[in-house]
Amino acid sequence: TINAGRLWDSIHETARFGACDGGGVDRLTLTDEDKRVRDWFCDTVEALGCTVTVDEVGNMFAHRPGKRDDLDPIAIGSHLDTQPTGGKFDGILGVLAGIEILRTLDEAGYITNAPLEIVNWTNEEGTRFSPAMLCSGVFAGVFPPDYAWSRTDRDGIRFDDALDRIGYRGTEKAGGHRLGAMFELHIEQGPILEAENCTIGVVTGVQGARWYDVRLAGSTGHTGATPMRLRRDALVGASELVLAVQRIAQDHGPEAVASVGRIDVAPNSRNVVPGEVSLSVDLRHPDDATLARMAESFEAELGRIADHHGLERDLTPVWDSPAVRFAPELIARVEAGAEQAGLRHRRLVSGAGHDAAYIARVTPTTMVFVPCLGGVSHNVAESTTLDECRAGAQTLLNAVIAHDNS
Amino acid sequence: TINAGRLWDSIHETARFGACDGGGVDRLTLTDEDKRVRDWFCDTVEALGCTVTVDEVGNMFAHRPGKRDDLDPIAIGSHLDTQPTGGKFDGILGVLAGIEILRTLDEAGYITNAPLEIVNWTNEEGTRFSPAMLCSGVFAGVFPPDYAWSRTDRDGIRFDDALDRIGYRGTEKAGGHRLGAMFELHIEQGPILEAENCTIGVVTGVQGARWYDVRLAGSTGHTGATPMRLRRDALVGASELVLAVQRIAQDHGPEAVASVGRIDVAPNSRNVVPGEVSLSVDLRHPDDATLARMAESFEAELGRIADHHGLERDLTPVWDSPAVRFAPELIARVEAGAEQAGLRHRRLVSGAGHDAAYIARVTPTTMVFVPCLGGVSHNVAESTTLDECRAGAQTLLNAVIAHDNS
Ligand SMILES: NC(=O)NCCC(=O)O
Ligand SMILES: NC(=O)NCCC(=O)O
Repeated sequence: TINAGRLWDSIHETARFGACDGGGVDRLTLTDEDKRVRDWFCDTVEALGCTVTVDEVGNMFAHRPGKRDDLDPIAIGSHLDTQPTGGKFDGILGVLAGIEILRTLDEAGYITNAPLEIVNWTNEEGTRFSPAMLCSGVFAGVFPPDYAWSRTDRDGIRFDDALDRIGYRGTEKAGGHRLGAMFELHIEQGPILEAENCTIGVVTGVQGARWYDVRLAGSTGHTGATPMRLRRDALVGASELVLAVQRIAQDHGPEAVASVGRIDVAPNSRNVVPGEVSLSVDLRHPDDATLARMAESFEAELGRIADHHGLERDLTPVWDSPAVRFAPELIARVEAGAEQAGLRHRRLVSGAGHDAAYIARVTPTTMVFVPCLGGVSHNVAESTTLDECRAGAQTLLNAVIAHDNS
Repeated sequence: TINAGRLWDSIHETARFGACDGGGVDRLTLTDEDKRVRDWFCDTVEALGCTVTVDEVGNMFAHRPGKRDDLDPIAIGSHLDTQPTGGKFDGILGVLAGIEILRTLDEAGYITNAPLEIVNWTNEEGTRFSPAMLCSGVFAGVFPPDYAWSRTDRDGIRFDDALDRIGYRGTEKAGGHRLGAMFELHIEQGPILEAENCTIGVVTGVQGARWYDVRLAGSTGHTGATPMRLRRDALVGASELVLAVQRIAQDHGPEAVASVGRIDVAPNSRNVVPGEVSLSVDLRHPDDATLARMAESFEAELGRIADHHGLERDLTPVWDSPAVRFAPELIARVEAGAEQAGLRHRRLVSGAGHDAAYIARVTPTTMVFVPCLGGVSHNVAESTTLDECRAGAQTLLNAVIAHDNS
């Protein structure tokens, strides 16, 4: 049985690394704070007798031998990086529940058949280096390592330079060892479990996502002396695009979501008509065909708006992540694990992307969700209770043990 | 007669200080580049036998004695700071034409009755420290020096610290000496002169302007997992506000202009629903009553939009600069000066704010405009010809001499 107090304490222990106002965590990938939590991870799992392997894109694997080393390890993992206004649980719960499982098994003197590996995937969030789930993607062969290494952040810093700077470029090839299965525990980041009073979400898959970068260029001018009819105001075009993106979500049913999260204006001076705007667009839907239609509408709206305001436009597709279905036999193990723990559960599709979505391409994979207050995440106020953490970690343990015994 | 080639050369000499891509100048007030152009100004006017006084907010006065030192000096001035995407002429032409007048008079051995003062006013642009025309405003008693000193830029740096850092806090009290008149030559920054094929604008006044800072706060959330109906997206509200500001201009006749020049989003992450947006609003009209109605519509729209999206709002008025009428006797001198030089001219009201607008409160003041290509300014492509510079400087000289003789 999971020791929920111990799990809770280690969540709060790691929340010091990058602690920010409002009780949240600001720990962008490959920053000094990320290095500190990675060092903590190494120290902690090594003290539990594990061996740590780091691959060429910084993914970390804490290996606990099983009885039969001919079996591929069962992975339990998620990510330790956060959003700039992140919470204490998003990703972190999934890694620390893995560590809690190691401790629980150690106390019980329990050795699994297959080895266990607790995994910290690099750059899940995608906010510093796009796209999201970058290094689980490399592990799964979705992206070549070169692609990850050459990604740059907004200051032009390359991923590989940032990785070397914190000393977490390992020697193992990404994807260089096989996993027998992967289980990821995560907070839901949405409102369904809370609304239906369920403690466990049995995750059957992940919805599809498309990300774009857009650049609109008009002409700068004096805000006092440039008549309205002579302007080519890039921010006016960008504002229409933000509202068009909202309408696209509304026009494609209640499951569709569409957002502009990032916008940068140049020269960003209060008495200069904006000459250039860069922004990001994020479209998602559980159904790939609907998502494709949303993408088409978006491209059409962008063209219409740019033409109407006489703006130049650049459209860069950044990410195209189709909808994912998890392995039925693992989904059933999670369901049984929740039953065994006497917890209310329901099946659902994840709105957020997760490392599990890419790992599912190379090994049987599934996820366990627990509720978060108000469905809120990517927000310093993100909150999950001790009992919910217990429920998630216990279900995870039950599912892993059952899978190991099968 | 003005030596236009010499004026042209000194314009290009100063354009080195802060030269940026596209042939423009990026010389925000009180930066190292601003210090370099100020040092150049001192060296140049001292070589011409002038004495330089710097006041407590960094305004610089190059004094050339007249025959009668009981008369208040006639000022010729403008500003040497620029926008981040500024041109080579905005402000600069007005100061360097003053220096060219000194050279022309020296060559002719001409001593005016009243002393002459060439003035460089601090922080006209208002982009680093708002509001615009800050230190001509202090000189004119519109703002107390404390107000100027305590303004902060976007990095939180105080005006007085920036001023001390470049060594340009002088000892004279701002407004501590009287001016008998002030003439400011400037590029039009609008399209009228070019469209009507006039070389000289006889400026009768400056339109009114109101500036605001707006903050809209909603709630961050995950872009993939937060249903549209549960969002409070601050960028959606901000985008509606940008478009409302456009409509307000369109609803108040062809002279009305209204702009959002600056927008900053937090956390500005591509997979986070924007939680907070700060933006600047700039409303202008030549008629104060119309401007007041525009301001009312804007406040009403802000309230409506914030309520509709469940956003918190903060509204900070930053600047309220009523319409200004220049001194009729000086306007007539500029008109006669253009006639004398055989130049096509017309009267107009300035769309942009200028130091002259504040100095007009304490001494008879007017302005001379020359065209700029396409009416474009606050843009690296800002352009005015050598002949136009000549025309402006000659009209300025004619008007100053006639005024001095009256
Ligand atoms: N779970 C999570 O926040 N993933 C980040 C990638 C995404 O935006 O879905
Ligand atoms: N002339 C000029 O660009 N002034 C800056 C202040 C304003 O925005 O009007």
